[in-house]
Amino acid sequence: MDEPLNLVLFSGTDDKLQAAAVLAAGAAALGKPVNVFLQYWALDAFRRDRIGRDHGLSPEAGTEGRRHVDHLHKAGQASWADTLRQAKDLGSIDIQACSLSMDLLDIDSTDLDPLVDGVEGVTAFYINAGEGQVVFI
Amino acid sequence: MDEPLNLVLFSGTDDKLQAAAVLAAGAAALGKPVNVFLQYWALDAFRRDRIGRDHGLSPEAGTEGRRHVDHLHKAGQASWADTLRQAKDLGSIDIQACSLSMDLLDIDSTDLDPLVDGVEGVTAFYINAGEGQVVFI
Amino acid sequence: MDEPLNLVLFSGTDDKLQAAAVLAAGAAALGKPVNVFLQYWALDAFRRDRIGRDHGLSPEAGTEGRRHVDHLHKAGQASWADTLRQAKDLGSIDIQACSLSMDLLDIDSTDLDPLVDGVEGVTAFYINAGEGQVVFI
Repeated sequence: MDEPLNLVLFSGTDDKLQAAAVLAAGAAALGKPVNVFLQYWALDAFRRDRIGRDHGLSPEAGTEGRRHVDHLHKAGQASWADTLRQAKDLGSIDIQACSLSMDLLDIDSTDLDPLVDGVEGVTAFYINAGEGQVVFI
Repeated sequence: MDEPLNLVLFSGTDDKLQAAAVLAAGAAALGKPVNVFLQYWALDAFRRDRIGRDHGLSPEAGTEGRRHVDHLHKAGQASWADTLRQAKDLGSIDIQACSLSMDLLDIDSTDLDPLVDGVEGVTAFYINAGEGQVVFI
Repeated sequence: MDEPLNLVLFSGTDDKLQAAAVLAAGAAALGKPVNVFLQYWALDAFRRDRIGRDHGLSPEAGTEGRRHVDHLHKAGQASWADTLRQAKDLGSIDIQACSLSMDLLDIDSTDLDPLVDGVEGVTAFYINAGEGQVVFI
C-alpha cells in the first residue's frame, strides 16, 4: 500500500505529458507517493525556458486531435505543468531528471524548471521505486 | 494472484492496439482480471463509427511494416477489436473510457462501441486497479 | 524481491531501445532478473542483419534531438545492443521474441541476433513474468 507509483517519462509531447500528469495527480490525491523519472524528450520539455512552450502532439493526433486539444486549452484547461504543480501541493510527487539524459541533452540542473527536484541515475531510481509499479510513458 | 492487470491505452494506431489486445487476451486466458482504461487517441479508436476503420500504424512501421500488417489482415488475422470481443467471452475484461478524454474528444457514451463497458475518472481507475500492474500503451 | 522485471519492447527506434537497455541493465546490475519480450518493430530491430543499423528516432526528437544522439554516438556511447550484451554478462537477462510478431514479420529464429535467447508466446511470457512488473516500451 505504501509502495510508490514510478513513472518513467520518455515522450515530450503535450498529450503524453498531460496523460502522465493526470496519472501522477490521481495517485497523489489518493495518498500514494509518486516518483517521476525524466528521460530523453520528456526531460527536454522540463527545461526552464521550454516548459511553457507548445511541445506538439503525437503524430497520430492529426488535425482533428490538434483541434480538440486547442479547444480545451482555450477553455482554460490546466497545462500538464500546472497539473503537476498543483499535484505537488496535494501529495507527494518527486521529480528527478535522469543523469544519462542530462548528458545526452548537454544540460545541467540550472537549466531545469523548479518542478524538477533533482538529478539521479537509474540505480537511484530503482532503489526509490522499491516494489512499486513502474510505468513507462 | 487475484490482482488485476490494468492497461492504460493511450495510442490509437492498429499496431499498438493489437499488441494491447494480445496482452489483454493472454492475461484473461490465464484467469487474470483485466481492466482497460481508454485515453486520448485510443478512446477515439473505440468510437462506434470508427472502430472498424484503418487507424494507421506507428510512424516507424514504414512501408515494409505496413505491408506485413496488410498481409496478415488479408490472411484472416483477427482485428484488435475482434480479439478483445473474443477475450471478453473467455475471461474478465472490463473496458472503461477516461472521463477527461471523453470531454477532450467531445463525445458521450452513446458514441462508443459496445465493447466499452462504461466511463470513469482516474480515481475510480486506481481504486479498481488495486495493487495490480499498471501498463501504459 | 525475487520477482523479475518484465519489459515488453514494441518500439524499434534507437532512442526507445536505448532507454529500455538502460532500464534492463540497471535492474540486472541490482540483481533483479529481467525478461525482455520483443514485439513488432522492436523485434525487427533485433534481426541479425539489422541490429547494427541506424533505426531512427521517435518523430518528436526532431533535428535537435538527432544532433544530440549523433554527438554521443561519436563520443563513444555504447549502442543499446552493446549495453544489452554487457548487461547479460553482469546479470540475468532473458530476451524472447514474441511468436505472433515472428509470424507478422515473416522471420524465423535464424534471422535473429544471438542476443535473442528464444521464441515464446504471450502465455509463456506471463508465466515467466510471475508477479513482477510489466513495463511496455
